[in-house]
Amino acid sequence: MSGRQVAVVGAAGCEPDSVAAQMAEEVGRHLAGAGVTLVCGGLTGVMEAACRGAKEAGGSAIGIVPGSEMSEANPFCTHVVATGIGHARNLAVVSSGQAVIAIGGEWGTLSEIGLARAIGRPVIALRSWTVSGRGSMEDAPGVRAAETAREAVDLALAHEAP
Amino acid sequence: MSGRQVAVVGAAGCEPDSVAAQMAEEVGRHLAGAGVTLVCGGLTGVMEAACRGAKEAGGSAIGIVPGSEMSEANPFCTHVVATGIGHARNLAVVSSGQAVIAIGGEWGTLSEIGLARAIGRPVIALRSWTVSGRGSMEDAPGVRAAETAREAVDLALAHEAP
Amino acid sequence: MSGRQVAVVGAAGCEPDSVAAQMAEEVGRHLAGAGVTLVCGGLTGVMEAACRGAKEAGGSAIGIVPGSEMSEANPFCTHVVATGIGHARNLAVVSSGQAVIAIGGEWGTLSEIGLARAIGRPVIALRSWTVSGRGSMEDAPGVRAAETAREAVDLALAHEAP
Amino acid sequence: MSGRQVAVVGAAGCEPDSVAAQMAEEVGRHLAGAGVTLVCGGLTGVMEAACRGAKEAGGSAIGIVPGSEMSEANPFCTHVVATGIGHARNLAVVSSGQAVIAIGGEWGTLSEIGLARAIGRPVIALRSWTVSGRGSMEDAPGVRAAETAREAVDLALAHEAP
Repeated sequence: MSGRQVAVVGAAGCEPDSVAAQMAEEVGRHLAGAGVTLVCGGLTGVMEAACRGAKEAGGSAIGIVPGSEMSEANPFCTHVVATGIGHARNLAVVSSGQAVIAIGGEWGTLSEIGLARAIGRPVIALRSWTVSGRGSMEDAPGVRAAETAREAVDLALAHEAP
Repeated sequence: MSGRQVAVVGAAGCEPDSVAAQMAEEVGRHLAGAGVTLVCGGLTGVMEAACRGAKEAGGSAIGIVPGSEMSEANPFCTHVVATGIGHARNLAVVSSGQAVIAIGGEWGTLSEIGLARAIGRPVIALRSWTVSGRGSMEDAPGVRAAETAREAVDLALAHEAP
Repeated sequence: MSGRQVAVVGAAGCEPDSVAAQMAEEVGRHLAGAGVTLVCGGLTGVMEAACRGAKEAGGSAIGIVPGSEMSEANPFCTHVVATGIGHARNLAVVSSGQAVIAIGGEWGTLSEIGLARAIGRPVIALRSWTVSGRGSMEDAPGVRAAETAREAVDLALAHEAP
Repeated sequence: MSGRQVAVVGAAGCEPDSVAAQMAEEVGRHLAGAGVTLVCGGLTGVMEAACRGAKEAGGSAIGIVPGSEMSEANPFCTHVVATGIGHARNLAVVSSGQAVIAIGGEWGTLSEIGLARAIGRPVIALRSWTVSGRGSMEDAPGVRAAETAREAVDLALAHEAP
């Protein structure tokens, strides 16, 4: 049986020194500390920060990248799944976690929240889609807001693997 | 060169006599009247209502279904693309229209709005994600609200095919 | 209910004046003459020749292209489904026909024969994978060889839609 | 940077005590011994045997399953990517290895050989598509035959990661 896995989603365009990146790195660190594999889209921004946190804490980080070349992944992925299916790989990312932590986020992140809920995965929103003022998904059934990385990971780990 | 195509997305679970279904049918009728092919997910609810409107007005309706069996499509699809890729077919639906009209909507619809914007397709929201009180995408760049089926189709047709 | 659909697969790199292209065009023409919609990958070579045959005979040709831009399709597609999932769209192509006609072919064609059989679609091989001397799939269960475009279409239309 | 990865493909229906299963297990063991991560489709037959070999030798085995539930994976996968895209996940499997080892095989395996070559991955055929008498891919460019598990792994590891 494979171990526990949690998906982390968020913007590729997020700045390395932003609050979102810091939170993502902390999420990765906490997951590694709990012996949980991090799964993400494998690119830059939130994804890279989360992988860095996981790897530096000795954990596993699987990057599920959109293209068919493994070299597309950020250098902190310990494993890479190259899908070749572009944005459709968002479905694979959210399907591969027992819960999904969304950090900040752009349109791709919104699609991942929608896909996660469509297949019944719980979503923990960490400053996602509220910072921008676009409106909040956080009160919707199956979506919980978290204020800190620690709280987000605790909420994610409270769910059983599907 | 293929003709113009507009994607219509919305909940499979919408009731046949709901406002959303009536609007979807009217959208389908207007698209057919303008000689524009309707593209959708090919299932029930908003999708079926839109296809019925299009077909009864003599237009074309392509249903892009999640499974690998063409019989999964609603009976008003004039053409069927069976994808076999489940929810990932949402990407194909929104990619296949010069614009996307979102009517009402559940989580799958939210994912389609996110995917549409991620690849740069304009979205017209027709009572989508405001009815439920979950928050509105409508003020976000690239998303326009419409009040009527007529207005939604006019906004969609104002965009050039990508 | 949608009408009958047959998938045609073959190499994008096939020369316009090759035997394979001539056969593909004739297949498209025969399908249109029978009132059957042609489904293909929407690109050049065998795909374009088949679409040209179908369109010039007044039929419908759906191009299911790998990218997310509809403009990627050849000019003889009457409808376009832009999938955004790259080579994975091969599954959608073969799933969308009641039978699959393979003409000539390269590696992508071989993958389509494999995928078609994996989901139970009958395959008609028209000088496919025998020309090259690589070995023949034609004696395998579910794969029938045809010598002419006419015979290939007749064999394809003898199958019921799934 | 992630470590080296090799994809192993073959029939789900292969018997546990067959030659194919024994070879698959040995391939998994050799990959683990070389510190290389095994990537496969995560189901039964050849896939399960390869994962068992890898896991029992202390290696990593990533199962890329067709459905959206991680529990679909065989118990020897150390990590699971649930794709939700059905047979289209075959593209992700072959894209995620620097080389692809095909063992025995049914139609799905044939599709994986085609997809692997379509994106330029080298294929090592280990009693694949010759046993059945259907014809051999082994003389095609980019496809090499191997007689033993050891030889297959050596040929696979001679290729650089893409």
